[in-house]
Amino acid sequence: MTETTTLPPTCNARISPRGGLDILSREEVARLQTASSGGLRELLRRCALAVLTTDADSDDPRAAALRYPDFDIEVQQQDRGIKIELTAAPATAFVEGEIIRGIAENLFAVVRDIAYNANEVHGSGRFDLGTGSGLTSAVFEILRNARVMKSFQDPNLVVCWGGHSINRDEYLYTKKVGYQLGLRGMDICTGCGPGAMKGPMKGATIAHAKQRQWKPRYIGITEPGIIAAESPNPIVNQLVIMPDIEKRLEAFVRLGHGIIVFPGGVGTAEEILFLLGVLMHPENRELPFPFVLTGPAQSAAYFERIDQFLRLTLGEAATSRYRIIIDDPAEVAREMKAGIRKVREFRLKEQDAFFFNWSLHLPLEFQHPFVPTHAAMRGLNLHRDQPVHLLAADLRRAFSGIVAGNVKVEGMREIEQHGPFDIDGDPEIMRALDALLADFVQQRRMKIEGTYKPCYRVLGA
Amino acid sequence: MTETTTLPPTCNARISPRGGLDILSREEVARLQTASSGGLRELLRRCALAVLTTDADSDDPRAAALRYPDFDIEVQQQDRGIKIELTAAPATAFVEGEIIRGIAENLFAVVRDIAYNANEVHGSGRFDLGTGSGLTSAVFEILRNARVMKSFQDPNLVVCWGGHSINRDEYLYTKKVGYQLGLRGMDICTGCGPGAMKGPMKGATIAHAKQRQWKPRYIGITEPGIIAAESPNPIVNQLVIMPDIEKRLEAFVRLGHGIIVFPGGVGTAEEILFLLGVLMHPENRELPFPFVLTGPAQSAAYFERIDQFLRLTLGEAATSRYRIIIDDPAEVAREMKAGIRKVREFRLKEQDAFFFNWSLHLPLEFQHPFVPTHAAMRGLNLHRDQPVHLLAADLRRAFSGIVAGNVKVEGMREIEQHGPFDIDGDPEIMRALDALLADFVQQRRMKIEGTYKPCYRVLGA
Amino acid sequence: MTETTTLPPTCNARISPRGGLDILSREEVARLQTASSGGLRELLRRCALAVLTTDADSDDPRAAALRYPDFDIEVQQQDRGIKIELTAAPATAFVEGEIIRGIAENLFAVVRDIAYNANEVHGSGRFDLGTGSGLTSAVFEILRNARVMKSFQDPNLVVCWGGHSINRDEYLYTKKVGYQLGLRGMDICTGCGPGAMKGPMKGATIAHAKQRQWKPRYIGITEPGIIAAESPNPIVNQLVIMPDIEKRLEAFVRLGHGIIVFPGGVGTAEEILFLLGVLMHPENRELPFPFVLTGPAQSAAYFERIDQFLRLTLGEAATSRYRIIIDDPAEVAREMKAGIRKVREFRLKEQDAFFFNWSLHLPLEFQHPFVPTHAAMRGLNLHRDQPVHLLAADLRRAFSGIVAGNVKVEGMREIEQHGPFDIDGDPEIMRALDALLADFVQQRRMKIEGTYKPCYRVLGA
Amino acid sequence: MTETTTLPPTCNARISPRGGLDILSREEVARLQTASSGGLRELLRRCALAVLTTDADSDDPRAAALRYPDFDIEVQQQDRGIKIELTAAPATAFVEGEIIRGIAENLFAVVRDIAYNANEVHGSGRFDLGTGSGLTSAVFEILRNARVMKSFQDPNLVVCWGGHSINRDEYLYTKKVGYQLGLRGMDICTGCGPGAMKGPMKGATIAHAKQRQWKPRYIGITEPGIIAAESPNPIVNQLVIMPDIEKRLEAFVRLGHGIIVFPGGVGTAEEILFLLGVLMHPENRELPFPFVLTGPAQSAAYFERIDQFLRLTLGEAATSRYRIIIDDPAEVAREMKAGIRKVREFRLKEQDAFFFNWSLHLPLEFQHPFVPTHAAMRGLNLHRDQPVHLLAADLRRAFSGIVAGNVKVEGMREIEQHGPFDIDGDPEIMRALDALLADFVQQRRMKIEGTYKPCYRVLGA
Repeated sequence: MTETTTLPPTCNARISPRGGLDILSREEVARLQTASSGGLRELLRRCALAVLTTDADSDDPRAAALRYPDFDIEVQQQDRGIKIELTAAPATAFVEGEIIRGIAENLFAVVRDIAYNANEVHGSGRFDLGTGSGLTSAVFEILRNARVMKSFQDPNLVVCWGGHSINRDEYLYTKKVGYQLGLRGMDICTGCGPGAMKGPMKGATIAHAKQRQWKPRYIGITEPGIIAAESPNPIVNQLVIMPDIEKRLEAFVRLGHGIIVFPGGVGTAEEILFLLGVLMHPENRELPFPFVLTGPAQSAAYFERIDQFLRLTLGEAATSRYRIIIDDPAEVAREMKAGIRKVREFRLKEQDAFFFNWSLHLPLEFQHPFVPTHAAMRGLNLHRDQPVHLLAADLRRAFSGIVAGNVKVEGMREIEQHGPFDIDGDPEIMRALDALLADFVQQRRMKIEGTYKPCYRVLGA
Repeated sequence: MTETTTLPPTCNARISPRGGLDILSREEVARLQTASSGGLRELLRRCALAVLTTDADSDDPRAAALRYPDFDIEVQQQDRGIKIELTAAPATAFVEGEIIRGIAENLFAVVRDIAYNANEVHGSGRFDLGTGSGLTSAVFEILRNARVMKSFQDPNLVVCWGGHSINRDEYLYTKKVGYQLGLRGMDICTGCGPGAMKGPMKGATIAHAKQRQWKPRYIGITEPGIIAAESPNPIVNQLVIMPDIEKRLEAFVRLGHGIIVFPGGVGTAEEILFLLGVLMHPENRELPFPFVLTGPAQSAAYFERIDQFLRLTLGEAATSRYRIIIDDPAEVAREMKAGIRKVREFRLKEQDAFFFNWSLHLPLEFQHPFVPTHAAMRGLNLHRDQPVHLLAADLRRAFSGIVAGNVKVEGMREIEQHGPFDIDGDPEIMRALDALLADFVQQRRMKIEGTYKPCYRVLGA
Repeated sequence: MTETTTLPPTCNARISPRGGLDILSREEVARLQTASSGGLRELLRRCALAVLTTDADSDDPRAAALRYPDFDIEVQQQDRGIKIELTAAPATAFVEGEIIRGIAENLFAVVRDIAYNANEVHGSGRFDLGTGSGLTSAVFEILRNARVMKSFQDPNLVVCWGGHSINRDEYLYTKKVGYQLGLRGMDICTGCGPGAMKGPMKGATIAHAKQRQWKPRYIGITEPGIIAAESPNPIVNQLVIMPDIEKRLEAFVRLGHGIIVFPGGVGTAEEILFLLGVLMHPENRELPFPFVLTGPAQSAAYFERIDQFLRLTLGEAATSRYRIIIDDPAEVAREMKAGIRKVREFRLKEQDAFFFNWSLHLPLEFQHPFVPTHAAMRGLNLHRDQPVHLLAADLRRAFSGIVAGNVKVEGMREIEQHGPFDIDGDPEIMRALDALLADFVQQRRMKIEGTYKPCYRVLGA
Repeated sequence: MTETTTLPPTCNARISPRGGLDILSREEVARLQTASSGGLRELLRRCALAVLTTDADSDDPRAAALRYPDFDIEVQQQDRGIKIELTAAPATAFVEGEIIRGIAENLFAVVRDIAYNANEVHGSGRFDLGTGSGLTSAVFEILRNARVMKSFQDPNLVVCWGGHSINRDEYLYTKKVGYQLGLRGMDICTGCGPGAMKGPMKGATIAHAKQRQWKPRYIGITEPGIIAAESPNPIVNQLVIMPDIEKRLEAFVRLGHGIIVFPGGVGTAEEILFLLGVLMHPENRELPFPFVLTGPAQSAAYFERIDQFLRLTLGEAATSRYRIIIDDPAEVAREMKAGIRKVREFRLKEQDAFFFNWSLHLPLEFQHPFVPTHAAMRGLNLHRDQPVHLLAADLRRAFSGIVAGNVKVEGMREIEQHGPFDIDGDPEIMRALDALLADFVQQRRMKIEGTYKPCYRVLGA
């Protein structure tokens, strides 16, 4: 992107709300406008631009901002409700001057959630964010406000995790798994970026069309820090922006009825440790939760490595909560289907809701937002002298910090200013961690642009 | 109802929520259960019984309670949501042991609104109920929570007011008006009891069927004090329970796009004075609001009397805000249709919502709940030395008190204990008031059972 | 209707097709136009006028023609399809110049069926109308062309028969039965005129609304000879015009899953004999077919009389195929529901369709159109020396002739020219017949206008 | 495929009808069964197998038959309707033993159309297949019977033609064009095989999802001779099987509102000549019909060649009826959209239907089925001494014969027995034809398997 680059074409537009945000009180309209013009403006601008540059290629969160320097978004107040005014927005989001309907919906989802997170979750005092139940309530309310929960819907939501920069074979494999899931009537939920977050939705789209399933759900759950790096892919038809990665992860495990993990990088490792740490908590021992790690034949070594790391750090018991399936999309779908059938029976027996996994116990360590400062990273307890789910919690935080240092605006700034994070702990674990991360780099699972400079230093290894 | 009367047959049942109340947080479930088992239990029981005795004949609010002495309702908590457990409920609400679907919906509306009114409106501190905007917000939120507002719906909601004990000719006339409204695509909103509140809905039902309009709205807006005396008629497909008569009246004028008044008694007079007082406020001068008083030929004298009373008390200017149409249902419908077209244009121009009349100025005097104690009734200012809308406000309160003394449980108890209310004021107004009320009695518009004993004494007449 | 009567107001209009008749071939358009301008024009005019005078009071088929002497209808050809041009049509069918949607639909049903009956049933040679299976095919095709059969719909269609000029108590009773049927999810099919053909639909409408059943079916099946005397009531949302009374009766028994008979006159007697004669045929012995005769308490004597007549003429065995229920609407509905459950099981077992009663054997005697000339009436065999279903067939014809002489244009002309029909047979049967008919007259079940002049003479009585 | 090949897995199943074929008369059920068991059995078997092997790779029509030698299909008669019994069917069409819904629908479409074509089009005498209007009626009735025409649907159906074996760049380009069409609300109709018949549907699917268009139409129109070589792709949600190529072409031009041609081989050339010959007929001079030839940059030379051939054979005037657009998918979509707007205006002005292009004049030469025997091919008049549309008609037939010799079972057998077809005509045209066909071969647009052996000899070149 040199100074002579011509900037891409842009459009101005004024957009009316679709679904939600259509029946607002005067206070809500005012709050929305205030929120969007005050301190949240920059956040709103960044997230809106991510939605508008759907399909774009780069995953440098700052690239879009550079290409559309004059882009602006304003929420306008009317007694009738609100309008969104876009200035210098990417022309690719429009057809003959009219915004693509799905993009408009996602744009209003961004406004909805940013305002809700600011006004209701943090600004209202409604939630006691120091307690587990308060945090869970906040997650529930954000999801309900986004209307992603459906009563009377049988459990069928499969969450797919995995990297955004996987190779072509891996990508095609995620499509095949999505296809097999779709053939069996399952809906898809992902982090809504490219790669493993897009493939399963694409595959399911074709399968749903073949099965004449007309109202499939493709739910994307993201967060402000990551959305710019992982633009919602075009198939997402329900977008939710959670305030932070911890609430995002809680949303995944409470909303989804089963989880599939494809190959990925540090973010994926963070997700695996989160889920496994939670499932290994004694209170969740009886709770059914289908959890499959899968990839094409060439990914076998990758999952072997992950498997070793998990056994080493969390012990052999960890392996009872997941299954690794190599190169067999239909078997993955069958495993999910069977597992979700058990989830359904369990919820009926426990009189728990289908739409939200209330029974899952989430230790506060997994819920509390972790801000990856240098001090916090250095303070992580990565030793074995603690319950296994607490070690998982801190390992999760370590990966989370590395993700932030790699792709989140605040994290990247931190690293630029103070150099890499220091991580310390049990030598064996440290060595395993270092080796795993080196693998990710070598397999190009963490690259952004230019030469890769790690944002961390493993001390004890 | 002597002691030898056999009690009517009853049913026990356990009911799952329909629409709304289906995706609840754990706190909501807990609050619902607490609300329904604590101080609100008696209120819930009374309102639920009203819904379950739909179609019943008596309008003594205590009759149903006597006939179903063992009736009980309990809200049961589950992680999944809630269930309603009914004990000794009227068998007429069931078909072969299964509750009639519309009755089940209205039952859940009762639970929903009673809990919302207690927990959110009064218990949460969300609304500043001392200010006009706070009160309006509460009204808006109750209506939104009940999902009666529709975006993208063109203005077409006609509110019909009038007595619950009108004579057969008048009743048939209300059906004809409803039929003509229905033919022209209008939906109906009433206070949801019998008489003038049922006729327009019945007429519209046939017209909507003939026009193949498949999703018509028959909105009933009631309040806990009156619901027992005015059981929601069977056609109501959206029921809302406002906390008090003032919020109920505000709901009518903010939700409806035009209002028709049929013959009625004191309650109807209260409604007329409310609307006219509001419309005569200087800030509402430019606001279009179709307002028609109508009845069959035999009601001509009745409306003449009302007309005289309004001219006398509020002045000639009052007459510019309403039109009296005698014995011409089609003309009433045409007038409404034309008036609502102007409402639509006005809202578009002012960028006001179609679903809620934000632009209408409601003086605090009309919003603030009036509790008709003997002292409060005696303290009303019914003299001419004040702005006309304030006189209208206190006249409205006078009628409101009389309604309470006649048919509301608390009001009737008050009268039984302390004798009739005293009302004082300008002698000419007092004489007119007394004459009007005497007329109502003579025309049997206020009768309940046995000999009529007035619950008030006009002092200055 | 003296010569000074002012004629009622009229409208001209041009109407586009709704549902059906919208995707036509050029030949069909041409045939429709030819049919409607040639020999069928008068028939079309008469039937269209009946639809347009829905709600009218008189049942003299010639009254409407006199009141709207200039009424005309023309089917206009376009490549796009057709338009209907109305001249001097009854203004009551319009609202502010626009035709009521349900009336427009029924109008197009008239055009559709008259053209189909002329072009396809009689003009095409597709059906061998001399054989039972050919006649049944014609009935099936007319019904399919009218789109009244639904696949995947569980059996729930109750046919209601009975008189068009019943008294108020009887009428209210038919409403109550319809209400109980509607509460239990049943749809209604009738001959689509007033009285017992309207009441059940009205009652069901309210029940369907209470049960939130949004797509109920109110099927009206009529024939050109009777439609003018029995204008389709406003609730009918699917209208079919069969070519003659025999096909109309076949349509009832093949489409309906059970039949209720209310009090009525000769037409109703014709219907009872048709159904009973058919059910008594040996081949139908195993076929379940719920068949209830019912009325309010005051009708008990009426049904006793009918019962006696049936026992006398068809023998005691006849009584096993019907049940008489007096003054118990809920029991009628329960009996139907239970009976239809058996019909459902039978059809599943026999792999017969839910939407058409293929298994019912219909002897040719009941299918073949009977033209009631004086000779034909005199030639009926009303003696006992024959199988009981054949006697039923000729009794049915006798009643059919009397209906024609009373209310059908051709029949009335015949009687005016040649005097009353002569009917002869077994003296006991003749006496019973005469007494039954005298009862009908005395109970005013056959009256049209002025003094009643019987159109028949019973010879053998 | 050597003798040691393991055959792929298979399933047996019994399937109930979906949509259509659900309300059948007894005669229809009997005729369907007769048709499917008699002479049509082999045809039905072949077409059904094509539908069941959707997604398969080979385009040798005989490959599927070899891989599933025991496959069989039987239509079973019931009073209720029909069932389809499948034996040894490809397991890929099933998920856990249940047939994929879209495949089941297409399977019933096959049964429906084969029976309709045999019983109604050819067996009934309803259509005079010797006249143009008789042939057009047959096309209309087949399409109506298949329910592909929608009234009240604005013109938006784009037909996409082009080769089934195009290269990857061309295929991706067809997807991009489909995407741009879909973004603009257009539906897609193709010949329903792979390549250029699949790409536009795939692209449109993503665009329709982004635009939240939930009921898009992907219509596939095929014929028994070609379906085996061009299995309906999985996105087709409405499948029609026309009796022969001429009726298939007529269906395309009467149903579609505009036509896009992508690169292709002989079949595509046949299609171009058909459309151009028709549009050049004097009676169609005023008729708007958007017609675009398009491909990626690398296809520029290909279209130049086609353009030259058309100018040479049909004259410069031909070029006024089509536009060539290279490498600009959005411009193609804009051109279609604008052209279809003109079609809409024209039909409104002419009062012609939106759903069927009645106004298009189709000379009998283009309608009459051409059977490509050696004699018929030799008899084609490919000289200039005739109206240009007649030359186009015979050129079309020449290409049609070559397609048959290449991929249709009967044609291939003919060539195997009697050697290549001889084609003769004007030397300049013959040379151009020969060069064009040589190009197709060289660009691998005609290849099946093994070395390519042309099925024709150009004599005059």
